[in-house]
Amino acid sequence: MVSEVERVPILRLTEAGKSTTDDVVVREFPLTIILNNQELVTLLCSPKNLDYLAVGFLSSERLLKSKDEIKKIMVDDRRGVARVETEESNKQADEFLFKRLITSGCGRGASFYSAADVDGQVKVESQVRISALDIFELVREFQHRSQIFRTTGGVHSAALCDTKSILVFSEDIGRHNAIDKIFGECILKDIPTDDRIIVTSGRVSSEILLKAAKRNIPLLISKSAPTDLGVKLANDLGVTLIGFVRGKRMNVYSNDWRVASHG
Amino acid sequence: MVSEVERVPILRLTEAGKSTTDDVVVREFPLTIILNNQELVTLLCSPKNLDYLAVGFLSSERLLKSKDEIKKIMVDDRRGVARVETEESNKQADEFLFKRLITSGCGRGASFYSAADVDGQVKVESQVRISALDIFELVREFQHRSQIFRTTGGVHSAALCDTKSILVFSEDIGRHNAIDKIFGECILKDIPTDDRIIVTSGRVSSEILLKAAKRNIPLLISKSAPTDLGVKLANDLGVTLIGFVRGKRMNVYSNDWRVASHG
Repeated sequence: MVSEVERVPILRLTEAGKSTTDDVVVREFPLTIILNNQELVTLLCSPKNLDYLAVGFLSSERLLKSKDEIKKIMVDDRRGVARVETEESNKQADEFLFKRLITSGCGRGASFYSAADVDGQVKVESQVRISALDIFELVREFQHRSQIFRTTGGVHSAALCDTKSILVFSEDIGRHNAIDKIFGECILKDIPTDDRIIVTSGRVSSEILLKAAKRNIPLLISKSAPTDLGVKLANDLGVTLIGFVRGKRMNVYSNDWRVASHG
Repeated sequence: MVSEVERVPILRLTEAGKSTTDDVVVREFPLTIILNNQELVTLLCSPKNLDYLAVGFLSSERLLKSKDEIKKIMVDDRRGVARVETEESNKQADEFLFKRLITSGCGRGASFYSAADVDGQVKVESQVRISALDIFELVREFQHRSQIFRTTGGVHSAALCDTKSILVFSEDIGRHNAIDKIFGECILKDIPTDDRIIVTSGRVSSEILLKAAKRNIPLLISKSAPTDLGVKLANDLGVTLIGFVRGKRMNVYSNDWRVASHG
């Protein structure tokens, strides 16, 4: 296993003066995903659970529907390559490559700006509800779990939860990757995501919202801010979007009927 | 001009109970960049200074070298399209499209993983120095300027500075975009970047470091964490990388000879 952090020498300056010391920084690792011998993408990620990341990414991009389709996964964590072989042909992969070719970018806009992608998305109908107190408790537990962030300040965290506890937890330098790793683990371990909750440390843009909606997630909770398109999609797709959960405060941006107030 | 923020209705829950109110969220705007009639990329960005973003992006990707090459810039901020016409042929744009095709991703890894791109990068030789007190003062001023973040919590800021003051400032939902907007403005307004300093609110990954090195920036200052590849590139390319500038503390990760300690 490749380490997720690295120790580097630094000069630290404080009011007391300067000192030479070591600091722990987060690693940035290029992972190339190859689907049926076709090179799809290179992600910059944290070098842990690369199989989850590859499977979660393919699922988010609709290039993989279920675990049953997977014939083989080979991760070479020295060369930074994940090879996935599936039963399916690569017709969709060709479409993916064409789509990214014109719409990729920092925000991974590819998914969203294919109108068919959003239009084809089924609304989340889950009737699950959660109390405000349970949300505060989940986020408190979530922060407690964020190990690498506390060491390096350089990663995002994500978690799959039910209304009472964290079921799956991940960290990555990319907020998209952290969520893809969650869903990849769910697929490979047959963990259902219906009626479940995603908690994220990162901002909720349209792509993050769509990732959750694709897995039929009814509640998306963030410690940070949403964007206007994130809020719009949450309204349209039936997702309860909660932001700025800090201490005993939160903002509910959409479908607030799933949140019971105090008491 | 399209607004950078939008007001949305929310349910706010606090210990005192719940209330229906409005919240201001940051806008997420798709901008498609077209170079000489060839569609290159769609960025998710904040809808301000889209001409700076288009020019800065093209420059960062080495598709544009100087202002003189630009024949025309047309920004349609309703349709979200920036068309740039240059004297150059599109040979490099074809290479860009091919490169992205295999390496694009959330981290915009494209630039870095082309080995030729890093190998071809000249080391930053600037002899500029700055005192620790001036760094603290610059970052204090930088935080003061970050307007949209204070309203929405949803954007990154970047600034071009000399050792005493902020010269160019920008905000964007993407940390890459915020820096590209700075460089785009510098190109269009003939503002030199040699011997200048970049301050950013965001994490310093390899791509951010490379963006600065390409513009010959000797000092990169962040309020956040660097990655290991960011530190490695900073060492290799002669950039002084400073992170975690908070209050009266900072970490200098590379080329610390440019930083004078207190006094």
